[in-house]
Amino acid sequence: MSPSPREILESLFSNAVNAVSPQQCVPPHLPDPPREGRVVVVGAGKAAAAMAAAVEARWPDQAMQGLVITRYGHGAPCKRIEVVEAGHPVPDEAGAAAARRILALVSGLSEQDLVLCLMSGGGSSLLSAPAEGITLEHKRNINRALLKSGAAIDQMNCVRKHLSAIKGGRLALACAPARVFTLVLSDVPGDDPAVVASGPTLADDTTAAQALAVLQRYAIDVPAQVLSHLQQPTHETPKPGDPRLARNEVRVIATAQDALQAAARRARAMGLAAHVLSDEVEGEAREVAKVHAAIARHIVRRGEPLRRPCVLLSGGETTVTVRGQGRGGRNAEFLLSLAVELRAVPGVWALAADTDGIDGSEDNAGAWFGPDVLQEAAALGVNAKAMLDNNDGHGFFDRLGQLLVTGPTRTNVNDFRAILIL
Amino acid sequence: MSPSPREILESLFSNAVNAVSPQQCVPPHLPDPPREGRVVVVGAGKAAAAMAAAVEARWPDQAMQGLVITRYGHGAPCKRIEVVEAGHPVPDEAGAAAARRILALVSGLSEQDLVLCLMSGGGSSLLSAPAEGITLEHKRNINRALLKSGAAIDQMNCVRKHLSAIKGGRLALACAPARVFTLVLSDVPGDDPAVVASGPTLADDTTAAQALAVLQRYAIDVPAQVLSHLQQPTHETPKPGDPRLARNEVRVIATAQDALQAAARRARAMGLAAHVLSDEVEGEAREVAKVHAAIARHIVRRGEPLRRPCVLLSGGETTVTVRGQGRGGRNAEFLLSLAVELRAVPGVWALAADTDGIDGSEDNAGAWFGPDVLQEAAALGVNAKAMLDNNDGHGFFDRLGQLLVTGPTRTNVNDFRAILIL
Repeated sequence: MSPSPREILESLFSNAVNAVSPQQCVPPHLPDPPREGRVVVVGAGKAAAAMAAAVEARWPDQAMQGLVITRYGHGAPCKRIEVVEAGHPVPDEAGAAAARRILALVSGLSEQDLVLCLMSGGGSSLLSAPAEGITLEHKRNINRALLKSGAAIDQMNCVRKHLSAIKGGRLALACAPARVFTLVLSDVPGDDPAVVASGPTLADDTTAAQALAVLQRYAIDVPAQVLSHLQQPTHETPKPGDPRLARNEVRVIATAQDALQAAARRARAMGLAAHVLSDEVEGEAREVAKVHAAIARHIVRRGEPLRRPCVLLSGGETTVTVRGQGRGGRNAEFLLSLAVELRAVPGVWALAADTDGIDGSEDNAGAWFGPDVLQEAAALGVNAKAMLDNNDGHGFFDRLGQLLVTGPTRTNVNDFRAILIL
Repeated sequence: MSPSPREILESLFSNAVNAVSPQQCVPPHLPDPPREGRVVVVGAGKAAAAMAAAVEARWPDQAMQGLVITRYGHGAPCKRIEVVEAGHPVPDEAGAAAARRILALVSGLSEQDLVLCLMSGGGSSLLSAPAEGITLEHKRNINRALLKSGAAIDQMNCVRKHLSAIKGGRLALACAPARVFTLVLSDVPGDDPAVVASGPTLADDTTAAQALAVLQRYAIDVPAQVLSHLQQPTHETPKPGDPRLARNEVRVIATAQDALQAAARRARAMGLAAHVLSDEVEGEAREVAKVHAAIARHIVRRGEPLRRPCVLLSGGETTVTVRGQGRGGRNAEFLLSLAVELRAVPGVWALAADTDGIDGSEDNAGAWFGPDVLQEAAALGVNAKAMLDNNDGHGFFDRLGQLLVTGPTRTNVNDFRAILIL
């Protein structure tokens, strides 16, 4: 029996997630363990525990110490590497305490030692430690003010890196003179490893002076301790070319593009043409859905830019400006807007989900729908447009019984969207 | 000498506009003039004068009477058909008076007579006449309240059709028993002729009861005269299958897709692969730009979904939620956001313009840029992101000297976007 459209979509998603699982991606990139010297494994992110488990499996007899921090519920059983679960997206004390222990673990190492650093999306919140002289409250207040200020994300990251004891390459400085080998599972559009988890082991091309300029430009209240920290030249983050990082290496081991390509291969194996529109789509989820809907409708009505049957795939990270009272992450919002904007054009099925298995802060990865979605909703007395206006994508697909629930996948390459046009 | 990227883009736009010019599109669709009986030509929209001129040119010896309404500045010289210029997008008394004269012109015709109705985008504002017993002020107040209410565009159009003496098929009723032949130059996503200019000669599938329900649902104050008009069954608009419209015909003579296909053919003739993403893209201009940027960046970085060199084309109608103080229509806003979101990826040029020659209510059709746009702006001390935040697309491209100024084109198939990736 041939698979149903829903089964096809779910199989594309599971192939995408499997292709970027730490179990698949970590082993081929691991360096040789040092002949002499210790191995210390540290890391943070939604994939941290699964990455640690993959290291243990690949190096069954290697003596090692380590600690990785992951999100609550994203743990995995490890024997030699300690796994701490902590708060995300809002940092908590469990994460802060574990971050301090990581800094302690990597201190006092020698040139013969190797630090394996396992980084993945979510690591920035999970691996949070204020720089000396700065309190957690200082950081929180500044962060809150920045979020309201209209500052761009790279401006905020510049400030965050310069208030941290661990971000922006400082973890690598703490490891010195040991060699640091960083494996990065990228959840950021563009796949710049210095952006994933705020690049704790990578050189930082922003400066304390820039961080200060951002704070001044947006008229953010800067306590004296923070000001004095930012004005102290010895507190600068390491820059590209810094000799203290010269022996280090970084490998981006999995990206959204890898996941999308795996889904495309799977679609082609099922006899469907498959096209990746982009691995780095950003923008307001409901507006991004309108463009996807316009392309899908054009394929149905005009047979271009592609012929059906086909699958359109895209990745990236959309955003949701919450105005309503409903529940749901950005993938449910995208999908509900897509359902509305397709305007009951025949022959279109779609699935959108977060590859980490958690859409926003919900219990589902995402959802799916078929061409009769608006009719089915109407039959249940559910108004798709009204639920979209209320940011209630979760509620909508819950009512239809079309949530996609996977639990934490222990990997994270951000959003996954598939539109199947038969 | 081979054309520059800018020249390529401008040539795509001019080919697109020429392909949907009334001069090109009207003649092949004109019916035979009646053997006996009069010819009356009426119409409204940004292309109305050029459509009337095309009718006169095709029927040089045919006796005819007529009146068409176009936007200020969009007139064209006609001899037998009167051209009135009027207010758009805000209706004015010139338009209202001309609409009443059109109703008078088509009254008292016989079965042998032919009414040619020339409709194009903008016609809804230009051809505005309140139903009997309703004042212009009633219409304005209800319209203003609807715009603030959150009602959907099709709900607003349902109300508008039922408060009008001319929209929603009523012009066709006024023409009866004459035969009505309608030529439509479509500016609406989906190209439904009943939507262009609110379909004055086309059957209406919405009802007065629905219009009333919309007004009640959004708690809009309805004066007694309006209520009594909507409750009077003889005031209903004609429905599909209405025998009074049985002899009428409608032809959609040009669409966004026609313009985009002409641009694609031109690109191919210049040796470039060309792909129409969609002819009906809607959504907030700056967010729509993010998806276009993501696709263009993906082509540059990954060689998919298409290989370069290529041209991406799209049409439709975006919107701008104005928050800033700047100047500019939706095409300038799209283009400035695209410039920001491309993030200086190499090899990308773009042009966005309104096919009617007027972006919003500015003096330019649109604008264009090349891969160094952010650098060039910075050299002039212009911050692209800040100008985008201020909705100042016109100001940005004006500073760069990269506005595209064509004057009114006397046609209108809505937005045109071309992204050239070399």
